[in-house]
Amino acid sequence: MKVIKGFQADLNVNYQLNVINLIKHAVRNYSRQEIVSRNLDGTLFRYTYSDAYKRMQRLANSLESIGIKVGDRIGVIAWNTCQHFEIYFGLPGMGAVMVSLNLRLAPQDLAYVINHSGIKYIIVDEDLIKVVESIIPLCKGLIGYIIITDKHLSEIETILKPIYLYEDLLSKALFNYDWPNLDENSVYAACYTTGTTGKPKGVYYSHRNVYLQALMFAAQFSMNVNDVIFQLVPMFHVLGWSKPLAAIYGGAKLIFAGNWNMNDLKELTNILVQEKVTVSAAVPAVFMAMLEIIRKMKQKPDLTGARLICGGSEPPIALMRGFWDETRAEIIHSYGSTETMAITTLNTLKPWLEKELSEEELWNLKKKQGIIVSGLDIKIIDKNGIELPHDGKSSGEILLKGPWVTENYFNDPQTEESFTESGYFRTGDAGYLDSEGYLKITDRLKDVIKSGGEWISSIDMENSLMSHSSVLEAAVVGIFHPKWDERPLALIVLREDFKFTTKEQIREHLSKSFAKWQIPDEILFVNKIPRTSVGKLDKKMIRIEYRELYTKN
Amino acid sequence: MKVIKGFQADLNVNYQLNVINLIKHAVRNYSRQEIVSRNLDGTLFRYTYSDAYKRMQRLANSLESIGIKVGDRIGVIAWNTCQHFEIYFGLPGMGAVMVSLNLRLAPQDLAYVINHSGIKYIIVDEDLIKVVESIIPLCKGLIGYIIITDKHLSEIETILKPIYLYEDLLSKALFNYDWPNLDENSVYAACYTTGTTGKPKGVYYSHRNVYLQALMFAAQFSMNVNDVIFQLVPMFHVLGWSKPLAAIYGGAKLIFAGNWNMNDLKELTNILVQEKVTVSAAVPAVFMAMLEIIRKMKQKPDLTGARLICGGSEPPIALMRGFWDETRAEIIHSYGSTETMAITTLNTLKPWLEKELSEEELWNLKKKQGIIVSGLDIKIIDKNGIELPHDGKSSGEILLKGPWVTENYFNDPQTEESFTESGYFRTGDAGYLDSEGYLKITDRLKDVIKSGGEWISSIDMENSLMSHSSVLEAAVVGIFHPKWDERPLALIVLREDFKFTTKEQIREHLSKSFAKWQIPDEILFVNKIPRTSVGKLDKKMIRIEYRELYTKN
Repeated sequence: MKVIKGFQADLNVNYQLNVINLIKHAVRNYSRQEIVSRNLDGTLFRYTYSDAYKRMQRLANSLESIGIKVGDRIGVIAWNTCQHFEIYFGLPGMGAVMVSLNLRLAPQDLAYVINHSGIKYIIVDEDLIKVVESIIPLCKGLIGYIIITDKHLSEIETILKPIYLYEDLLSKALFNYDWPNLDENSVYAACYTTGTTGKPKGVYYSHRNVYLQALMFAAQFSMNVNDVIFQLVPMFHVLGWSKPLAAIYGGAKLIFAGNWNMNDLKELTNILVQEKVTVSAAVPAVFMAMLEIIRKMKQKPDLTGARLICGGSEPPIALMRGFWDETRAEIIHSYGSTETMAITTLNTLKPWLEKELSEEELWNLKKKQGIIVSGLDIKIIDKNGIELPHDGKSSGEILLKGPWVTENYFNDPQTEESFTESGYFRTGDAGYLDSEGYLKITDRLKDVIKSGGEWISSIDMENSLMSHSSVLEAAVVGIFHPKWDERPLALIVLREDFKFTTKEQIREHLSKSFAKWQIPDEILFVNKIPRTSVGKLDKKMIRIEYRELYTKN
Repeated sequence: MKVIKGFQADLNVNYQLNVINLIKHAVRNYSRQEIVSRNLDGTLFRYTYSDAYKRMQRLANSLESIGIKVGDRIGVIAWNTCQHFEIYFGLPGMGAVMVSLNLRLAPQDLAYVINHSGIKYIIVDEDLIKVVESIIPLCKGLIGYIIITDKHLSEIETILKPIYLYEDLLSKALFNYDWPNLDENSVYAACYTTGTTGKPKGVYYSHRNVYLQALMFAAQFSMNVNDVIFQLVPMFHVLGWSKPLAAIYGGAKLIFAGNWNMNDLKELTNILVQEKVTVSAAVPAVFMAMLEIIRKMKQKPDLTGARLICGGSEPPIALMRGFWDETRAEIIHSYGSTETMAITTLNTLKPWLEKELSEEELWNLKKKQGIIVSGLDIKIIDKNGIELPHDGKSSGEILLKGPWVTENYFNDPQTEESFTESGYFRTGDAGYLDSEGYLKITDRLKDVIKSGGEWISSIDMENSLMSHSSVLEAAVVGIFHPKWDERPLALIVLREDFKFTTKEQIREHLSKSFAKWQIPDEILFVNKIPRTSVGKLDKKMIRIEYRELYTKN
């Protein structure tokens, strides 16, 4: 779309929207605000915005001291810690690019990302050194490593060299740093997104993109100095869903969950309650498990006012209701991707809908992806590229554009199929918008099941399964069928206390919402459903595993 | 400050931060949100974001139909009405510049603004036609007038020509408009600021400036769809202190107060209560009068959760306490100017200060100008231009810079004295910052009183006077004195029920905070204190009126 120049007075065109200004202003205003970081041994480390800022400046000086320059790409493989938070500002603040490396990627994919982005140094948590060692032979451009650890140099066993210790560097560095006035279009960070096919694709966020996303998120979610943000989402996923940046804009208290997995959820739930968390985010499986833990607590925690952002997939009503009934915390669904810097919708209610709708209708509304945040353009298009009305039923592909949505993959031919000529990102999701502005995803375009020429929505069916009180997790995929081309298969993980549930009960439940021909031929109860490195259902893997299920019979 | 370019990936550099996107997204998300406008007869007109947006599009088509083009400057002289709100978007949205004209300016100043900005058309409320007629002979560039009225063309008596009627134009226009994709640095609006000396100075706001200010304001003030914003501040003053723009970003309900003066405050206070207003803004005198009205109400209104922004000068503690005790509304002090697009500070409390400080200390804190909003750079400099520490005592001139702070006056040699080379705005106010980031103004640099080589702060003394329970308004100025060079004079308006107060009581009150030599030689009780067209104390006028007070004796 052509840009039209209006009257030009040029009275303020030079102020740069860079992340340095975000952190400088946050520290000026909220120097005493607390930051908490969970150590490997489960203890909590506490310091303040002001303390962190001094270390960010030392970090910037350190990076310069080992020869890192404006424009250099530096990889980071780290858990959710205060050091990772310091790196979020100290590294891009001195003008380098923070390439967030997903520690769960296969070595060849990780090596591809490192080589594609031209990383020179890697900053790595000590217990993740093995991940880096595994890709050394594949990455010739690497010239050094910075290890985050409390140990002495002599205690570190590794083939990596040369190595520097994060704390050593900081202790030797000056604590005052003269930040450069970075052009707002300079790259702040890069995140690579791994699709189900092809090589990882590079999404590069500029300082301006990040600044505007933080501002939008703080505004649309009313995040401020009274909030306590619990950073559960890995900080290598889309900048931790942008929460640390929005949090500092608002001056909120931050808690970093450290190195955690599903086995740590009891401990993390205790932190959630004890630190009086008001904002967190995770995929439904995490909150489902937390809810189970809370249900078993003798004293019900009061989380009134807490807003828990649930992303990755639609939260079941049982989850939202459960949290509300048990704790008064609100689960808020959000939808996004690496290309859109996570937050593109937030499912918040409007005062008039709260008056007009019944309780049941409100819960159903809350399952939708929510309102497209201000700042983003959206188009729903049909197969011919024609824009569809926002009528609450016309479903088509969802296209997004906005001040922080990428319009290209960096140096990648996959750009062509994923972006329109006018710079819209093709999400690959199908859905519709209603007249109130709520988005509803109806399917992943590539996940749709085609049975005898008719479509079956795998997402609708998963959501229906998840709404059954016995179901903890569910996946529905299309499996090759000699007669019908594809037929659905459902995999289900049952909740601990509901192992007695039968396939017939599940079929009955589905038949309330689906036609008989749409019900899966096979329903399998499993202990675990395969997931990708970022926690999404790994449907490619499921399809491979069960590819002969409907041909063998 | 030199701009440093970091790594460039150019994955999103084209999305324009223009006000068209603000309103488009607001209407997409909150089409049913209500807008209320107070008619001349006191009745309330109600419609929705969606209704307003259709009229904005009709307006844009109308303006094109009479020959207005991208880049043209169009003057607006209007009260706080829904039409004025429509103009805020329809006019700059089609690429023209909205020049906000202060209807209280003297004709020669108004003519200067019109000629300096190159205005072609003026949009004017019918009852303000006389204001425009008075400057016609001085403004040769004007080619047409649009009258906002419900009347027919034949009923309008005026020497203006050609004239168009706002409603006629809209009713003939198409309701769909294809907004241009305006470059974000295009000028959105111009406001001229009138100092105590010199010609009015032009501050031109770009679309980007306005977009970012709206976003910041919504974020820092947590304005959202649940809020009800009462627009009291004239919309020709710094875009109504930017509230209408922040309001639509958040999707809030808007109420426009129409054509009002201090005599209408009883009616407006009723609207405040009945419409459950949560956000408003005004100078202290307005809220003081409202408080008096509320005190006399039989049933105390419950305004819990309301945040009333008080600007122009420091709110007395009695005002803040009074509102809190009577209604549970919070008065929040803010500081700003035309050059900074109004909001540069907001006096919000931090959770740790609420724990640590006594009630008395918290009230005193709330009198300060507040926390510099995120996004703004601030410098406090001494006479030699050296930056002072943020130690809560080192007072110097306050300099500001940021994404929406102007760095020049448009085509004006007065730029040189008001802006530094690096683009900081010299506020002309003296003050200090504390380590918590709260700003305290100690004086207007030009208002300081120099008595026998020593300084007396007129602002401190006014604040002290205002804290006396009998005082409604107060002004302190320096008057020429043959021996001491200058001596202070205090003018006081007493509150209705406190007319018995004596000068001696006032002197006694002042002596608690001031040295004997600082107490004004003369204290005069008056019915009214002269104010400028924007409602500030007109100290120039007071000095002229009393210039011989201390020489005659």
